Amino acid sequence: MSLRHLLSPRSVAIVGASDKIGPGFNAWKALEFVGFEGAIHLINPNKGELFGRRTLPSLADVADEVDAVFVAVQAERIPEIVRQATSKGVGGIAILSSGFAEAGETGAEAQRQLARIAAENGIAVCGPNCLGLLNFAGKAALFGTSLPESVARGGVAAIVQSGSIGIALLNAGRGLGLSHLITSGNEAVTAVADYLEALVEDPEVKSVIAFLEQLRKPAKFIAAAARAKALGKPVIVLKSGRSAEGRAAVMAHTGAVAGSVEVCRAAFRAAGVIEAGSLDELVETAVLVSGLASRPRGEGVGVVSLSGGEIALALDVAEEVGLTLAPIAEAKAEIAALLPEFAHIANPLDLTWAGLYDPTIAERIARAMGRQGQVGTLVLLQDAPRGLGTQQATRYSNLLRAVAKGARAAGKPLVAVSNLSGDPHPGFAAAAAEEGVPYLRGTREGLLAVASFARWAAPLSVERAVGADKAAAAKARNAWTALPANRLPAEHEARAILASYGLAGPRERFVTRAEEVGAAAAGIGFPVVLKGVVANLVHKSDAGLVKIGIRSADEARHAAAELLDRAARLESGEVLGLLVQETAAPVAELLVGARVDPEFGPIVVAGGGGVLVELYNDVAIRLAPVDEAAAGAMIAETRASKLLAGWRGKPAGDLAAVSAAIVALSRFIVDFADEIAEVEVNPLAVFAQGKGCSALDCLIVPKRRSG
Amino acid sequence: MSLRHLLSPRSVAIVGASDKIGPGFNAWKALEFVGFEGAIHLINPNKGELFGRRTLPSLADVADEVDAVFVAVQAERIPEIVRQATSKGVGGIAILSSGFAEAGETGAEAQRQLARIAAENGIAVCGPNCLGLLNFAGKAALFGTSLPESVARGGVAAIVQSGSIGIALLNAGRGLGLSHLITSGNEAVTAVADYLEALVEDPEVKSVIAFLEQLRKPAKFIAAAARAKALGKPVIVLKSGRSAEGRAAVMAHTGAVAGSVEVCRAAFRAAGVIEAGSLDELVETAVLVSGLASRPRGEGVGVVSLSGGEIALALDVAEEVGLTLAPIAEAKAEIAALLPEFAHIANPLDLTWAGLYDPTIAERIARAMGRQGQVGTLVLLQDAPRGLGTQQATRYSNLLRAVAKGARAAGKPLVAVSNLSGDPHPGFAAAAAEEGVPYLRGTREGLLAVASFARWAAPLSVERAVGADKAAAAKARNAWTALPANRLPAEHEARAILASYGLAGPRERFVTRAEEVGAAAAGIGFPVVLKGVVANLVHKSDAGLVKIGIRSADEARHAAAELLDRAARLESGEVLGLLVQETAAPVAELLVGARVDPEFGPIVVAGGGGVLVELYNDVAIRLAPVDEAAAGAMIAETRASKLLAGWRGKPAGDLAAVSAAIVALSRFIVDFADEIAEVEVNPLAVFAQGKGCSALDCLIVPKRRSG
Repeated sequence: MSLRHLLSPRSVAIVGASDKIGPGFNAWKALEFVGFEGAIHLINPNKGELFGRRTLPSLADVADEVDAVFVAVQAERIPEIVRQATSKGVGGIAILSSGFAEAGETGAEAQRQLARIAAENGIAVCGPNCLGLLNFAGKAALFGTSLPESVARGGVAAIVQSGSIGIALLNAGRGLGLSHLITSGNEAVTAVADYLEALVEDPEVKSVIAFLEQLRKPAKFIAAAARAKALGKPVIVLKSGRSAEGRAAVMAHTGAVAGSVEVCRAAFRAAGVIEAGSLDELVETAVLVSGLASRPRGEGVGVVSLSGGEIALALDVAEEVGLTLAPIAEAKAEIAALLPEFAHIANPLDLTWAGLYDPTIAERIARAMGRQGQVGTLVLLQDAPRGLGTQQATRYSNLLRAVAKGARAAGKPLVAVSNLSGDPHPGFAAAAAEEGVPYLRGTREGLLAVASFARWAAPLSVERAVGADKAAAAKARNAWTALPANRLPAEHEARAILASYGLAGPRERFVTRAEEVGAAAAGIGFPVVLKGVVANLVHKSDAGLVKIGIRSADEARHAAAELLDRAARLESGEVLGLLVQETAAPVAELLVGARVDPEFGPIVVAGGGGVLVELYNDVAIRLAPVDEAAAGAMIAETRASKLLAGWRGKPAGDLAAVSAAIVALSRFIVDFADEIAEVEVNPLAVFAQGKGCSALDCLIVPKRRSG
Repeated sequence: MSLRHLLSPRSVAIVGASDKIGPGFNAWKALEFVGFEGAIHLINPNKGELFGRRTLPSLADVADEVDAVFVAVQAERIPEIVRQATSKGVGGIAILSSGFAEAGETGAEAQRQLARIAAENGIAVCGPNCLGLLNFAGKAALFGTSLPESVARGGVAAIVQSGSIGIALLNAGRGLGLSHLITSGNEAVTAVADYLEALVEDPEVKSVIAFLEQLRKPAKFIAAAARAKALGKPVIVLKSGRSAEGRAAVMAHTGAVAGSVEVCRAAFRAAGVIEAGSLDELVETAVLVSGLASRPRGEGVGVVSLSGGEIALALDVAEEVGLTLAPIAEAKAEIAALLPEFAHIANPLDLTWAGLYDPTIAERIARAMGRQGQVGTLVLLQDAPRGLGTQQATRYSNLLRAVAKGARAAGKPLVAVSNLSGDPHPGFAAAAAEEGVPYLRGTREGLLAVASFARWAAPLSVERAVGADKAAAAKARNAWTALPANRLPAEHEARAILASYGLAGPRERFVTRAEEVGAAAAGIGFPVVLKGVVANLVHKSDAGLVKIGIRSADEARHAAAELLDRAARLESGEVLGLLVQETAAPVAELLVGARVDPEFGPIVVAGGGGVLVELYNDVAIRLAPVDEAAAGAMIAETRASKLLAGWRGKPAGDLAAVSAAIVALSRFIVDFADEIAEVEVNPLAVFAQGKGCSALDCLIVPKRRSG
């Protein structure tokens, strides 16, 4: 299915064209507004003429070819019109009518029928229950709502699932130059992912912004976003439903901490999508990426301001928004020579009033700062509220021009940020526009946009593609196939499978009779841990089936008898036997897990174990597989990483072994994505550097358990 | 020191008056701008006449009384002018000059001298290094910067430590009606706390906003803020330096997690201060509190919108900003009858397009929702961007009027919130103004303002004043006095002091010889815990001085010998003896601590123990003392509270006992505020409901340790 007919039709029919205010009138006006140059067919059985043109009673009466149809009639009449469109070989339909899936089961059934017919005939459908779409760049429109007097044109394509948000973006007056505005409505057929895929290939489109409530066709969306990244076109997404969305119902913690929201975020990250948290953040980021003359030259940012107060406000949000303040050590002497003796030379830099009264000072400082290798972008923090007196506005404008000159001399892009998000002083705004400096509004929104774009533009990290290990996979598959299919793999069985990927575990022996534990324990070395193994019972501790610190063969036998007795009285499942394990004295205990997300595929999770994951969700998530570098970055993201860094006098933990364990699980989940729902090692005992780590407990949950 | 002369002078002298643009010119213009009706004396030795008035060569030449002086001359000349002012009995001086504490040690010394002279003569000083102040309500000004053409007047007094932020607020064009704008500069003499104290008593002042980088005279500030709360005047504060501020250097965790930022927040909360996190949040909250016709009637909020997309955005931030969505169950039938069959009746409520096309529906729904007892405020989510077509803007305005009518009929205030923070459509803004509905900008900023004000206006919580327990204090003081002053109290000594306040601990015996531990352990009951006690050694575990799970007298003796041997080889301090304790099997382990903050006095802290506090700062903080209700609220604030709610099949913890422990520590720190720097119980073992809790480890750090 091509979107060409829908997005760039050569001919359009307006079904329900009208000279009364409403969709059938607005659609005509919208074509006029964008300067549509193709054929327009007006369909209205009750009027012979509209806008000085002859109308036709029905779509079937159009003699010529029709590329796309606009329709906003009652939902009941849609099937008939779609049939007519199908006969005419129409390639795209924008259906504004409501009364479909949003309106209960009858509507949902009508929508399913619509989707079926569209699929059979390869028709792209915008909507139903939408406002239609505008293609300013390609001079086309299938749009049913009134338009403002003027819309700034440019390279930003907007796709929104909410008509209301579409109207907001269209009228925001924020100077965003739009190439498209697409409201996707119920997405019966054509979804945001389809539009994104088409738009990234359009040379007129330089960046894409999207507002989503529900991400349909996620794999396609991620692929299109990754393609956009490769083409150097930023994709900025505001995905709502961040707090409301449910968690996967799963047996282990991995699913609880890596719910659909978190996995979606990991997928966005992997595809280079910039996420915004509010409509203002979406708009400011779009203003930045579409307005900056050149791309940031790395993650680091250099900040100047006239005001200690404004700098304090920026510092308050810098960490939260992930702003990397670049070191400026090598420019310190040069800058210090330009400022009063008492000036504090740092980044952010207070230019003091010297910078205001002598713009050449500001210019030279901006140049010196901009020349620092790690400064990829310069930021001028400067409030310029609308009511400002002319004298002050002129001074601030001169400052901006001076800093812009210095930034140009250093070859670095400049962004101006205001703490106030109301409309700025027109003189200052004009100066910024003339200098090609985006003027962002709001401390948080502005600095978040800078940080996001700088990260986006930074060279790709060293995370390499991970090659498959066929030998490991084959070995694991043999072990997997040998397991009984009528119950969950027991802990030691799961561990044996993961061992194929190099994951270590404690020395252990599985026995079936209490009499065997003494010898088994002696072979391992006291003290040992003894666990009762019951089919399909996951939480052994909670069931009282774990005894630790067993110091003699005698004690082991007593404990074994007690555990077997207790296990037999549980109504959980068959008692399989006893597990005798060496006692571990780790530096820290972590959780490493992986699961197959129904939307985004295999993912891997790592972070604090036990109470840390349950109370604090202290984990990092990535799409699987990951390599050692990515695994190390995951651990560093969590607060639990402090436990590995020589915490409270303990030795530092074996980070390399932890990274290898994460890599192992990420490979396993990819290799077994068809069979496994979830795998979890919790706790993963981490020993001192060079001593490795050990999977103290393991759980593998197959996708479907037969029996 | 009264601020009357500074804030409301009857006569003003401008030292350095001038007809050239600059402070001496602006000061004259500012007096004209506010309509100053008192006497003005222009001081300029070089011009005989300015603005058609005779000038005088020096302040000493003024024949009449001078209430206040404005001065912006070089810092070197300030002492001379202050001397002249002192001789004339001037009561207030605004010193704009820079070159004081902000400019190095020489300037700091000049500032100290200035402060000394001012204190000796009871002179209030605005600055130095400021822009001065404006009193629109009282028609007075000592202000040295140019003013916009017009400033909206009203009941909002603004106090800012940054001139730049002052200019931003003055010119923001956000419709904030100002009574005062005070830039406090270096605060050599008169600080934000002093201004606040004076302003809250001014009948023209209805609310106060403040921007702070450093809170001087904190106790006075908090008292003035509490007074404002009692008078029903909201105080809204943006305190920067949230992330940068350092932590107290302390021995226990309490100081590490309750640093100056967190304690300041607790103090603000106790005094009813509304905290803002950005300049936009400060402004929007001020727009709300000054613009709402009546006060919120409780914490609950009812939200309506035309758009599912806008509702999704609101839900995304609702939890983060603390918005309480009120239940509307009793209005459901009435509302459902007004909307299409498929409409989802919930709060936030989607009015669907029915609400747009028939405003009487929106009106009746607003009335029904507003009549719900727990709905204290109604919110209309409605974007109305500037570029909106007239037709749409009119529809949205009609919706707003209809919802406002319904809200009035229900007797509840209405707030409108836009997702976009740019300037709105003028027609919609005018409709909102006519209806007396504040139109807030930005999803987060708008809803945060609503949530903050609703909480502020809600009836005071049940936290009662806590009476002192003189008997407990006397008993604790006896124990305290008996301790050696040349070392930290040992764990069991600290526990004995806290026991006076009813805090339970494990059964224990302190012995000095290894031979005694067997009998002691037998008396307590095996298994026991054995600890080596060394003077001034706080972290026994880290030093290897703790043995757990000791099961026999024999084992105890061996362990004791080993611990004594290890203790003797430490170079920490004198080996005091051995502590034999019963083994606890708690449901959860918490931290309860208290300390005396140098700025805000005694505070109490409670939250997760061990790794939870160190990695996640999972604690709640209050000014001490607290009562049981406040203590319970503290625990509920932390994620560690989940551990007490029947976590992983364990029984629920004894919350009442935990609350009592928090109360006990909060009383102790108040009673011993002169002697104790810090006290900490970590872990506090919590047992099942009705089984109490136990201070497993205790630390008391005296303020000054002699020896």
